[in-house]
Amino acid sequence: MADPLVTLTTDFGTSSPYVAAMKGVILDINPHARIIDLGHEVPPQDVLHGAFFLAGAVPYFPAAALHVVVVDPGVGTARRLLYCELGAHRLLAPDNGVLSLLAQTAKLGQAIHLTESRYWRAAVSATFHGRDILAPVAGHLSLGLDPAMLGPPIQHLIGLPIDLPVIHANTIQGKVLFVDAFGNLLTNIPENLLSGRQPRVEAPRGASARWVRTYGEARPGELVALASSQGLVEVALVQGSAARHLGVGFGAPVVLRF
Amino acid sequence: MADPLVTLTTDFGTSSPYVAAMKGVILDINPHARIIDLGHEVPPQDVLHGAFFLAGAVPYFPAAALHVVVVDPGVGTARRLLYCELGAHRLLAPDNGVLSLLAQTAKLGQAIHLTESRYWRAAVSATFHGRDILAPVAGHLSLGLDPAMLGPPIQHLIGLPIDLPVIHANTIQGKVLFVDAFGNLLTNIPENLLSGRQPRVEAPRGASARWVRTYGEARPGELVALASSQGLVEVALVQGSAARHLGVGFGAPVVLRF
Amino acid sequence: MADPLVTLTTDFGTSSPYVAAMKGVILDINPHARIIDLGHEVPPQDVLHGAFFLAGAVPYFPAAALHVVVVDPGVGTARRLLYCELGAHRLLAPDNGVLSLLAQTAKLGQAIHLTESRYWRAAVSATFHGRDILAPVAGHLSLGLDPAMLGPPIQHLIGLPIDLPVIHANTIQGKVLFVDAFGNLLTNIPENLLSGRQPRVEAPRGASARWVRTYGEARPGELVALASSQGLVEVALVQGSAARHLGVGFGAPVVLRF
Repeated sequence: MADPLVTLTTDFGTSSPYVAAMKGVILDINPHARIIDLGHEVPPQDVLHGAFFLAGAVPYFPAAALHVVVVDPGVGTARRLLYCELGAHRLLAPDNGVLSLLAQTAKLGQAIHLTESRYWRAAVSATFHGRDILAPVAGHLSLGLDPAMLGPPIQHLIGLPIDLPVIHANTIQGKVLFVDAFGNLLTNIPENLLSGRQPRVEAPRGASARWVRTYGEARPGELVALASSQGLVEVALVQGSAARHLGVGFGAPVVLRF
Repeated sequence: MADPLVTLTTDFGTSSPYVAAMKGVILDINPHARIIDLGHEVPPQDVLHGAFFLAGAVPYFPAAALHVVVVDPGVGTARRLLYCELGAHRLLAPDNGVLSLLAQTAKLGQAIHLTESRYWRAAVSATFHGRDILAPVAGHLSLGLDPAMLGPPIQHLIGLPIDLPVIHANTIQGKVLFVDAFGNLLTNIPENLLSGRQPRVEAPRGASARWVRTYGEARPGELVALASSQGLVEVALVQGSAARHLGVGFGAPVVLRF
Repeated sequence: MADPLVTLTTDFGTSSPYVAAMKGVILDINPHARIIDLGHEVPPQDVLHGAFFLAGAVPYFPAAALHVVVVDPGVGTARRLLYCELGAHRLLAPDNGVLSLLAQTAKLGQAIHLTESRYWRAAVSATFHGRDILAPVAGHLSLGLDPAMLGPPIQHLIGLPIDLPVIHANTIQGKVLFVDAFGNLLTNIPENLLSGRQPRVEAPRGASARWVRTYGEARPGELVALASSQGLVEVALVQGSAARHLGVGFGAPVVLRF
């Protein structure tokens, strides 16, 4: 059997020692854990970015993986830390909405409020629960601990207020939910709302974007719209950055007309 | 025997979930794969930077590793994806020149055009072949699949137009090919063209750089030229950034006089 | 038994191939090594930042790990490379002070000057000893090589001049030692100097910071001071960046009054 997989997603960056400390804590408890970096460049305390990141990453992993998430602006408040199962996937995270996009498409299974401090570091700081609570709990789970030992069950996760697109007879009004490293603008409009129709696309700032199936149908520098690899309507500048070209980002409006 | 090594080199950055998704796909097919990040900060769609990166990294790995490369501005066009062997090393990459610096010093062995979709994800997006084709193929190869199963053979890889230095009787005219994280300017002039001679070095912007064997022969803040760790002529500012000091980057001229 | 752990901490960034080359060299010598990235975003040649990073990361690891550190502005000078044991932890690093914060709280055990070139790469460059000396030595140590084979013993490590806080009857004068990715200002004042007293805190630029136990006691946007997760006095802007808000960084003064 393969050694247990533990993934890490944080907003810590890697110029600070915080991610490294978490890896140390996990490996100190379970030297056989295989740690996989998902990403540490979630913008600081940007829970929605974290939610989008997880929705684009976790579904591809085998169920055996345990995913540890630390995007936690509420550390030191009454916000809960939790273990939960979403569909086949197992996660440890603050209960602040960072799992809410994953939860849109996966059924919530077992969910536990982490209260049993015997599985935490002996001294818990007021500001770094990733190292002091989530990492040691991940280490113990990777050794086979029953999650029910971690605390009492939870019935519901906290959701994020995520704007849904507004649908009229001949238009869909959406907005930019995420800007990726290429400057592609990913919207909150699921492609399947198009039902195969070809929309005219009003990109932000009055620009228009031609609907294509793939970047290859356009010339470099052309503004296009298409279905993203995650099934969302995306506005892109072929071989360039739509975000920089248009000077827009999160929240910018995108309208589809039929 | 050690579990199989799969390395990843991309231009995705790690604030987007794309690298993480590829890791999930590989591990879902082969939970025993050991994934090694080479680097994900290749500038977006910069094939030449990717080629330089690979030439400085892949040769140091054991032959058992499988290297997956996604710097792919042509995704969605007719560009090919390929498996190939260069010297002892095995790679999966788009056929867009990203392997051309490696190919200068390594003999092309088996090369395959990836066409057998049975080894791909069931649904292949138009924009993310790293996740949908290269990652699953890497997973299957890491399980021992014969590369010949992946598609028909290829005879030649596409090359990049890389400027060679211009050699006269008493001068060599080169240019900056790569700027590293320290701001060192790596040129297209192989050190062995010097045949042990000490050149006078005209750095970009009319600056002159003293030829040294090692940084330790100069004082902090001095502009020097020397043989880089990869055997290329390099212009460096000792304990500083030559790129920032001179305000130059890719393509800037460097002339050696004897 | 778990395969041997080798961690890497560098100032190389990951857009250059230097980290990847080191991984290749280690795995070529010991294909069973498990490589863990601690961080590669130490600012170029910033030895003090590296020292702080290591002090916040290494103590959490199991003793079995071997930590390789390359923050090495003196490459190519007479500075020594060394293997040493600090408390339970084993490290390979340049002897330039990068271990000095770790050494404040851990006893120096075996320490060796790396001189035995038979454990290095056959060709050693003048500018990249991380790849050519430290990585192959790490590979051999991970295979079980006795460190005493690597060279002669060293009695003392080089220290960094690190300012200590100035303590008067009713004040402690400190300064900012480190700015983390959230913009939190970590000072050189150990929290235990407070002996439980609640100070009034003069943050840099004449700002005052309220002493709290945790971020949750303040409102978003408030400037606070508290004990950091590493036990140092920290100035923070709740859900924001104190460094950006105050426009300060390394060296800025922080005064506690009682």
